Amino acid sequence: MYNYIYYLRACGRTRSFRGAALTHILILKIGGIRVINEKMRELGSKRSTIRELFEFGKALAEKRGEDSVFDFSLGNPSIPAPKEVGEILTELISSTDPAVLHGYTSAEGALSVRESVARHIRECFGCEADATNVYMTVGAAAALTSSLHAVVCPDEEVIVLSPYFPEYKVFIEATGAKVKEVPCNTTDFHPSVPDIEAAINEKTAAIIINSPNNPTGAVYTEDDIKKIAELLERRCAELRKVIYIIADEPYRELVFDGRKVPFIPNYYRNTIVCYSYSKSLSLPGERIGYVFVSPKATESYSVFKAVCGAGRALGYVCAPALLQRLVERCQGMTSDLSAYRENRDILLSALTEYGYTVSPPEGAFYLFVKSPTKDALSFSEAAKRYGILLVPGEDFGMSGYVRLAYCQSRDVIMRSLPYFKALASELGILK
Amino acid sequence: MYNYIYYLRACGRTRSFRGAALTHILILKIGGIRVINEKMRELGSKRSTIRELFEFGKALAEKRGEDSVFDFSLGNPSIPAPKEVGEILTELISSTDPAVLHGYTSAEGALSVRESVARHIRECFGCEADATNVYMTVGAAAALTSSLHAVVCPDEEVIVLSPYFPEYKVFIEATGAKVKEVPCNTTDFHPSVPDIEAAINEKTAAIIINSPNNPTGAVYTEDDIKKIAELLERRCAELRKVIYIIADEPYRELVFDGRKVPFIPNYYRNTIVCYSYSKSLSLPGERIGYVFVSPKATESYSVFKAVCGAGRALGYVCAPALLQRLVERCQGMTSDLSAYRENRDILLSALTEYGYTVSPPEGAFYLFVKSPTKDALSFSEAAKRYGILLVPGEDFGMSGYVRLAYCQSRDVIMRSLPYFKALASELGILK
Repeated sequence: MYNYIYYLRACGRTRSFRGAALTHILILKIGGIRVINEKMRELGSKRSTIRELFEFGKALAEKRGEDSVFDFSLGNPSIPAPKEVGEILTELISSTDPAVLHGYTSAEGALSVRESVARHIRECFGCEADATNVYMTVGAAAALTSSLHAVVCPDEEVIVLSPYFPEYKVFIEATGAKVKEVPCNTTDFHPSVPDIEAAINEKTAAIIINSPNNPTGAVYTEDDIKKIAELLERRCAELRKVIYIIADEPYRELVFDGRKVPFIPNYYRNTIVCYSYSKSLSLPGERIGYVFVSPKATESYSVFKAVCGAGRALGYVCAPALLQRLVERCQGMTSDLSAYRENRDILLSALTEYGYTVSPPEGAFYLFVKSPTKDALSFSEAAKRYGILLVPGEDFGMSGYVRLAYCQSRDVIMRSLPYFKALASELGILK
Repeated sequence: MYNYIYYLRACGRTRSFRGAALTHILILKIGGIRVINEKMRELGSKRSTIRELFEFGKALAEKRGEDSVFDFSLGNPSIPAPKEVGEILTELISSTDPAVLHGYTSAEGALSVRESVARHIRECFGCEADATNVYMTVGAAAALTSSLHAVVCPDEEVIVLSPYFPEYKVFIEATGAKVKEVPCNTTDFHPSVPDIEAAINEKTAAIIINSPNNPTGAVYTEDDIKKIAELLERRCAELRKVIYIIADEPYRELVFDGRKVPFIPNYYRNTIVCYSYSKSLSLPGERIGYVFVSPKATESYSVFKAVCGAGRALGYVCAPALLQRLVERCQGMTSDLSAYRENRDILLSALTEYGYTVSPPEGAFYLFVKSPTKDALSFSEAAKRYGILLVPGEDFGMSGYVRLAYCQSRDVIMRSLPYFKALASELGILK
């Protein structure tokens, strides 16, 4: 019965209660009484909508041909890594003693790698930073789980600004804490500071800030960040506790029209930055990123050690050594990201022309399109009939919208336009 | 106060209570009242004895020269990866579209990689296996944490056979479960089945079997495994629950004198194998391994999904893609492991000759040496005076012994011998 009790505690919802109870009884009938941690089985079994769309697309492609599917469901970069990535990897492999190259690094990462990250942070953002503030991670997801487990305790709350990346909920709930959703405004999907204030209480441990944003493409302004920082400073003092900003920044370099992404540690000292090279260097499968704990955070060294301890408890021995050595030499380098801006311009202008309502994204590689039908699920279903795969906003904690990932090839985007137009016509919005 | 309460619950020890309380008050005085999850800070701050020895060795080398330090503390392979590893990596990089090579794989791993692992399991061990039973992981530590979180629930117990790899305790406690230590016999460090039986109760969720063993080098026989399997089958039926064997097998290929390592799924169906290529291919820093859930396990598919779900909750998006493609082509390949056997023979024969008591290791690359002094800490301290770094057994849950990792260069081993002899003379055991 242990998994059952745990499950109830972790979910605390009647609907899940029933599902768990049913599954539990099913397992009871088939095997011994207690097989596995049911919560984990559910996490591993529940196919995300994104994954379902992907499978639908594959099946459709087999039936009607690749050309008839326009898959805008996944945030998988289509632009290859810069050619220097292959050159540096090859050179590292040919010129380094394999026992050293592939050997353990320290748990925090190789010192020279952490120094290169710190130098980049100092030079780009004018922010105090050295190697002792940098913990190399197995991508941004590992950075987030290590940071969350470090600063969040069971029964606390973590604020997320909806719409938000769905895995935040999984990662937060794994710490035993609860997700507190605060909707952004629906004009440009920037945060509402009064709404954040209303959500803060003595249980608030952290707020996740993801700018440039997945799924909306919003890039928070300096003014946004300043206001959030002022609010948090005030509430921390009143509540006599630290509330962290966990800044999830895999899209940092993907900004358009000369916008700047404020580096949050420069505005709020209790900030933990989670970074990944997945999008900037087009290396999403290689899992390499870092945590940067602001040296100005309260008890910064203890916070850093807690991040390391959490990483250890989660099973992260070190970030992949070869990839560490690679990014040491790729600081500030990016893939040719201009194609994403061009994709945005093409789609934004076409979709607007066809009568869709889209807030112009300021960064990342997503359009968050308002559903012309009553609900986004039916919009997504209608689009599927044209071979267009769009993720309903429900997955991101905001209904009435779909997410369109335009990190696709130009060819797919160009060929999709007539279908978007036909869909607009069917839905009666074509101007 | 949340971290404080959590800490108490997680540790449940008076001594830790005091430590936590003090730290907590210290932080109270310095910053806001609640800064971080204290348990995680402790995990990140507490330097392991192994790490301390490593730092001591570095300082000594600087003072007296590299030649005066004989570091037997770390299990870091000295034998390089086979040359094919570099060749395959270079070929993959030069011949594959980088957007594909470095792109996300599915969370379980690329299908062709999982198929190659399953084929290897079928061919080597005659065990039913296909890709749907294989989950590629970020090394063995990730395999262990994903498996433990999948099948263990808070307040349950996991049996470990002492002496054991110290991180087991960290990983088990991170699930909220407790460690139950069962000492092996001290003749050859094989398990005592009656003692395991005495440790099993209705809270037992799993037992970790690590053969070839770190730190003793014991390789459990077919008879050992059969007896444990019979015991577990009987107790599972009586308790009406599944008790898993989690088989941690990074040293599988490191066996001597023609010994065989029984493949546990062939003897006990509720087995989850955790494997790593760290030692067999000398790639410890690259973090690549897998979980194999026996297809004969009760509700095998659900168990597999729970492992995937746990990996997801812990922040594992996929195992590093390039390394997945590498091991796909390295199934059954190993570094030249014969050097480890020769190292063992040299040290075992010399140490025995000098009067030390050592059970001959049957595999892995460790000697577990009986301390000639009252306690192993003083033995380790005495050895340090000769520049010899040995890890006291306390770290592995068994006092009175030290661990000697002989995955060192031959040169270091040969030069260390006169110092071992002088140490034996000082300790009055030299024959």
